[in-house]
Amino acid sequence: MAYIDLGLDETRNPGITGLLAYRPETGRPIEALADALLFAPGSLPRGDRELIAAYVSARNDCTFCRNSHSAFAAAQLDAGMRLVEQVCADPDSAPISPKLRALLRIAAAVQQTGQAVTPELIDAARAEGATDVELHDTVLIAAAFCMLNRYVDGLGTVAPTDPSLYQASVPRIVATGYSSADRDR
Amino acid sequence: MAYIDLGLDETRNPGITGLLAYRPETGRPIEALADALLFAPGSLPRGDRELIAAYVSARNDCTFCRNSHSAFAAAQLDAGMRLVEQVCADPDSAPISPKLRALLRIAAAVQQTGQAVTPELIDAARAEGATDVELHDTVLIAAAFCMLNRYVDGLGTVAPTDPSLYQASVPRIVATGYSSADRDR
Repeated sequence: MAYIDLGLDETRNPGITGLLAYRPETGRPIEALADALLFAPGSLPRGDRELIAAYVSARNDCTFCRNSHSAFAAAQLDAGMRLVEQVCADPDSAPISPKLRALLRIAAAVQQTGQAVTPELIDAARAEGATDVELHDTVLIAAAFCMLNRYVDGLGTVAPTDPSLYQASVPRIVATGYSSADRDR
Repeated sequence: MAYIDLGLDETRNPGITGLLAYRPETGRPIEALADALLFAPGSLPRGDRELIAAYVSARNDCTFCRNSHSAFAAAQLDAGMRLVEQVCADPDSAPISPKLRALLRIAAAVQQTGQAVTPELIDAARAEGATDVELHDTVLIAAAFCMLNRYVDGLGTVAPTDPSLYQASVPRIVATGYSSADRDR
C-alpha cells in the first residue's frame, strides 16, 4: 500500500496510475509530458524511446516503471522482450544500432547526474547520426524517468512483480498514448 | 553553450528557459507541472515549496536551478535569502518548523532514490502535522527537480554564476507563475 491514502483500489491502480488519479492537477501535465516524449510522432522510433525509459527505470531499480515500459517497448520493437531484457542487462552487448547504443550511454549518464553527460558522449552519438532533437529527447526521457521512478517508489506505491500483469495496458498505450483526458473526463 | 543548437541567444535564455522555448511540445507540460507544484494554491506555502526545489537543486549541484529557485523562495519567505542559504547548507540547524524539516528529510531521500523514502520518514513528517497532499507534493517536487536538474545540466546549458542575475525573473514568477502560455502565444 502507498504511504498516503490514494482513495482507490491500488490493486487496480498500481504504481503511477493511482498517483495520477489522486492528484489530477499534477497528473495531467505528467501524462502530457509522457505523450510528447514517448507517443507523439518523432524521429526516434517509439520502441526505442520506450526502451530508453525501461533502461533508465531498470537502473533506478523501479519495478513498476521497468515492467510497464519494458512491455510497451517490447510491443513496439521487432525483436520484442528478449531485446528489452538484453538492453537492460547490458546495452554494450545487445544487438542494437550504434546510434541507439550511444544514446543509451547518454541516458545512463543522465541517470547518474546531469553533470555526467560529457561533450564526448554527445559527440559520439552525433558521429553515429543522432540529431539535436534526438539528443534533446534522449536526455529528457532519461531525466523524466529519474522523476517518475522516484515519484512511484518515493510514495511506496504497489508494484506487481509478475511481468504478465503489465500486459493489460499495452494495447491502450500503443494505440492512444498516455493521456487520460479522453477516457476519464 | 548548450550541447545542442537551441537557435536562440543563450545569454538571454539561460538554463531551462532556452530548452522550454526550443521544444514547446515538452516545454508546455513542464511549465504546467511547475505551476501545479510551485505556484497553484496549496496547503504548503509557496515559499516552502520553492525552498524544497532550491534544496534539491543544491543537492544535485545544479547551478541554474539552485540560483533560480533560491531567488523565488527568498522572495516569498519572510526570512529571505539568509534562510534559503541556511537550509541548503544544513536543514537540521536552520530555523524552520519541525514539519518543514521533516519534509526536507523526505526530499533529501528522494534526491538519492525513491527507495530511500522509508515509512519512518513519512511517519515522522505526519507526526509534525504533514498531510497526505503535503507528503505527495513534497515527494513530487523533489522528484521533479531530479528531472529538471538533469535536463538543464545534461544538455550543458548556460548557467550564470552571479546570483544577482537571477533576480530579473522573480517578479514575473511570483506574480504569474511558470506558464509561458499568456506571454508567448
